[in-house]
Amino acid sequence: MSMNRRDLLGAAAATAAVSSLPRFALGAPAADDRAKLYAEIGKRHGEAVARLQDWVKNPTIAAEGRGIETGCAQMMALARDAGFQTAVKMPTSGVPGVFATLDAGAPKTVGLYFMYDVKQADPAEWTTGKPFDASIVDKPGFGKVLVGRGAVNQKGPESALLAALHAFKGAGVKLPVNLVLVAEGEEEIGSPHIREIVQKPEVLAALGKTMGVFMPSASQDADGGLTVSLGAKGVVELELVSSGAKWGRGPSKDVHSANRARLDSPAFHLVQALATLVNADGDPAIEGLAAAAKPPNAAQSAMLDAAAKRLDEATAKKMLGATRWAHDDAWRASLERLTFSPTVNIEGLVGGYIGPGGKTMLPNKAVAKLDLRLVPDMTFDGAIAAIKAHLQKHGFGDIEVNVSGGYGPTETSSDAPLIRAQMAVLKRDGLDPLLWVRNAGSYPGYVFTGAPLKLASGHHGLGHGSGAHAPDEYYVIESTNAKFAGYDGAARSFVDYLYELAVIR
Amino acid sequence: MSMNRRDLLGAAAATAAVSSLPRFALGAPAADDRAKLYAEIGKRHGEAVARLQDWVKNPTIAAEGRGIETGCAQMMALARDAGFQTAVKMPTSGVPGVFATLDAGAPKTVGLYFMYDVKQADPAEWTTGKPFDASIVDKPGFGKVLVGRGAVNQKGPESALLAALHAFKGAGVKLPVNLVLVAEGEEEIGSPHIREIVQKPEVLAALGKTMGVFMPSASQDADGGLTVSLGAKGVVELELVSSGAKWGRGPSKDVHSANRARLDSPAFHLVQALATLVNADGDPAIEGLAAAAKPPNAAQSAMLDAAAKRLDEATAKKMLGATRWAHDDAWRASLERLTFSPTVNIEGLVGGYIGPGGKTMLPNKAVAKLDLRLVPDMTFDGAIAAIKAHLQKHGFGDIEVNVSGGYGPTETSSDAPLIRAQMAVLKRDGLDPLLWVRNAGSYPGYVFTGAPLKLASGHHGLGHGSGAHAPDEYYVIESTNAKFAGYDGAARSFVDYLYELAVIR
Repeated sequence: MSMNRRDLLGAAAATAAVSSLPRFALGAPAADDRAKLYAEIGKRHGEAVARLQDWVKNPTIAAEGRGIETGCAQMMALARDAGFQTAVKMPTSGVPGVFATLDAGAPKTVGLYFMYDVKQADPAEWTTGKPFDASIVDKPGFGKVLVGRGAVNQKGPESALLAALHAFKGAGVKLPVNLVLVAEGEEEIGSPHIREIVQKPEVLAALGKTMGVFMPSASQDADGGLTVSLGAKGVVELELVSSGAKWGRGPSKDVHSANRARLDSPAFHLVQALATLVNADGDPAIEGLAAAAKPPNAAQSAMLDAAAKRLDEATAKKMLGATRWAHDDAWRASLERLTFSPTVNIEGLVGGYIGPGGKTMLPNKAVAKLDLRLVPDMTFDGAIAAIKAHLQKHGFGDIEVNVSGGYGPTETSSDAPLIRAQMAVLKRDGLDPLLWVRNAGSYPGYVFTGAPLKLASGHHGLGHGSGAHAPDEYYVIESTNAKFAGYDGAARSFVDYLYELAVIR
Repeated sequence: MSMNRRDLLGAAAATAAVSSLPRFALGAPAADDRAKLYAEIGKRHGEAVARLQDWVKNPTIAAEGRGIETGCAQMMALARDAGFQTAVKMPTSGVPGVFATLDAGAPKTVGLYFMYDVKQADPAEWTTGKPFDASIVDKPGFGKVLVGRGAVNQKGPESALLAALHAFKGAGVKLPVNLVLVAEGEEEIGSPHIREIVQKPEVLAALGKTMGVFMPSASQDADGGLTVSLGAKGVVELELVSSGAKWGRGPSKDVHSANRARLDSPAFHLVQALATLVNADGDPAIEGLAAAAKPPNAAQSAMLDAAAKRLDEATAKKMLGATRWAHDDAWRASLERLTFSPTVNIEGLVGGYIGPGGKTMLPNKAVAKLDLRLVPDMTFDGAIAAIKAHLQKHGFGDIEVNVSGGYGPTETSSDAPLIRAQMAVLKRDGLDPLLWVRNAGSYPGYVFTGAPLKLASGHHGLGHGSGAHAPDEYYVIESTNAKFAGYDGAARSFVDYLYELAVIR
């Protein structure tokens, strides 16, 4: 559910001319070990890529109930092979998760969040027709890339972190931190049961000892743009279902549209309900929904100022196929709205006859698929309660609100060691990351940043890929472009980060 | 596009106990000829049913561009075989029609309106899995029925009329009237080009000589209910398309829903437009749309009074799966609304992600499929102009209005000989037809009843079938139920009607 940074920012950002600098400079501590580790990563490149290919070839797709048990077993095996001493299946009401620990005898412990599921893929939309064959192809201007569903979201970056761990194991170097891994298999349907995993006493206890939790990611845009994000909006995905049966008006089965004259229309009932959810400008009009939304503080305003200067508006509009921002906002205002405004979105409308042409029917049912995006301090439960109360108050209490997934917003301070360590290693690599107030997309980091854990949470990793949730998703294996790292560079960036986390105060 | 009378009326009406009366009593004139004709119909039963089966096996489906030329050729052949001296293809901008004439040297001429196309059929929804195999099966309580798409709508009744003509030919009996046939092949997509056929000078001239135009139909409900209708509502089928590209706001391609915060939503734009089309009660709120709608006159009010007494409200509600009429109307009021209220109906809503679960996207486009029903003296062009002006006025001028078909209302006086002849033959058969002010469904009779022709138009024919536009459509071939005629009875009813039309004043 997280969103490719490039799509979000359209970042044709000014970046440091990294090619002229030592790309992966060594920090002071354990410099010899790190050289050994880099060499080991290079030596094990082939087996690491084969491991990723095998993972992509065996997809878990929660929406389709596909590869659930096999995916969970593979996730456990991947963890154990990489050095985790324990890796256990965590049953939930839905798809099981995995909880794994790696005790290196280090003073500090770092949390990892993985997803082992991927988004659905329609073979007909893929150039190869094979979203799961994990083929490695030449992509001009990029290098060799692995094409497949999950390549960048999120198996590629996750496997690069595992490759880093294999390097420690293979080189006989002690890990500088202990690790606690929580993996879920239904991120792509809104992580409906991740609470059940994290709230298990043993998981809570293990995570409670960490300095924060990060998810491996491919943070580099095609043009080298790189952001360090301090959180993400929350999300609620739900369906509103209007039906004659529940309403007690209109037909309870599809009937000829001639009857419209004497029967109420559940489809119009839905339309009328939807129209109350936003104001004339399309902004949320659900009473109380945004009551807890916080405006930017001074530091956040400064981040937005900086972002507006570094990010390119024309590129962003072009990538979105848009000519105007909502409210005809200027660039800075559009970025503030992107990060600070809650939203009500129609993902899909479906009711009655949806084929070509028309069909003279009065449908008994119509459905709107919505997502709401939440900003701090809004909550998942609060948003659902608000929309239900709103519908009730406006005469639409019969409309079913079927929540399929979601969670609250994630927020981490820029002062958190987890974040400062990122900034440190990236700057040491000659990169100039943009500190970003929060992703407008969502990931379930709230289970870590919210009560009771209140941990820092973020994403980290060099490397590049794109096409999450889209056809021809890819992840760069061998980069021919100085603006982003390849697979081994990504693995090395995790080595660097773990060392930095071990020493940062 | 016409609507099964039973579905509309839910008519568990009181009907004469026809079984105790001579079912198809002979009128005074030409009694001997008629006996010969009845015998000939019986003799030719097999060949007539085989002709119908062959027709059902070769469908024309305008929406799918299927069987266009073959269907037109078959229609011409069917007409010629039945005795029409001329039967010519009438090219249009869409599917061609057929114009045929049968000059019997009679003083009077009667018009016939046929459709040779049928509605789409999804084999998966049919019990047999074969909508076009025209199988004849036992239907307990009904008799032997032909099952297939087009069985009752409209090939069955039309072929029964042709069977009557074959009987005249076979028995060597002179037809009592001349015939002018207009057939179209795109009734099921809203007859978009029937004007082009009827407005050809030779067709206009031929129709101008007729006393009116009727379409063969299976008028008897399963419980024997029978109505004679004086017209039909008009209809406009259209799509409203809201897109970022046309709007100049929101995305012009589908993007991640996180962007909703900074981009307008074409789907909400559509919802907001739709919400303005009706008032809080769901009645049309399009300015000027209903300006020309006429309220019931005294005679029509009396018909509604009579209908409310004869038709059963509970049956109607049960068949529609409804518990309340719009406005919580009483039965009489619901029938008046059914026949006298223009409507705005949502046939279908489709936009964005329509699969199972959700998908976090902001769609660039959303479509509403609408039908509007028109009452006299509203016009097709007037209704389209009204909705366009309304959208423009309310800030939705960017929304495309794509009209796919439709036509104005049809209205015929109960005094017209075409109608009085129906009443006469039905009453002579011991039946007690309900005079119905107009069908709430639609058929393109306006091309006959409107200027310049201003002819009477209606439907006629004994017999029963159901399932138009639905799976397992059927038409009764051999009736074991005294409440409705079988195939030969239907053919005989056309013989009776033609004789009555020849003598009525």
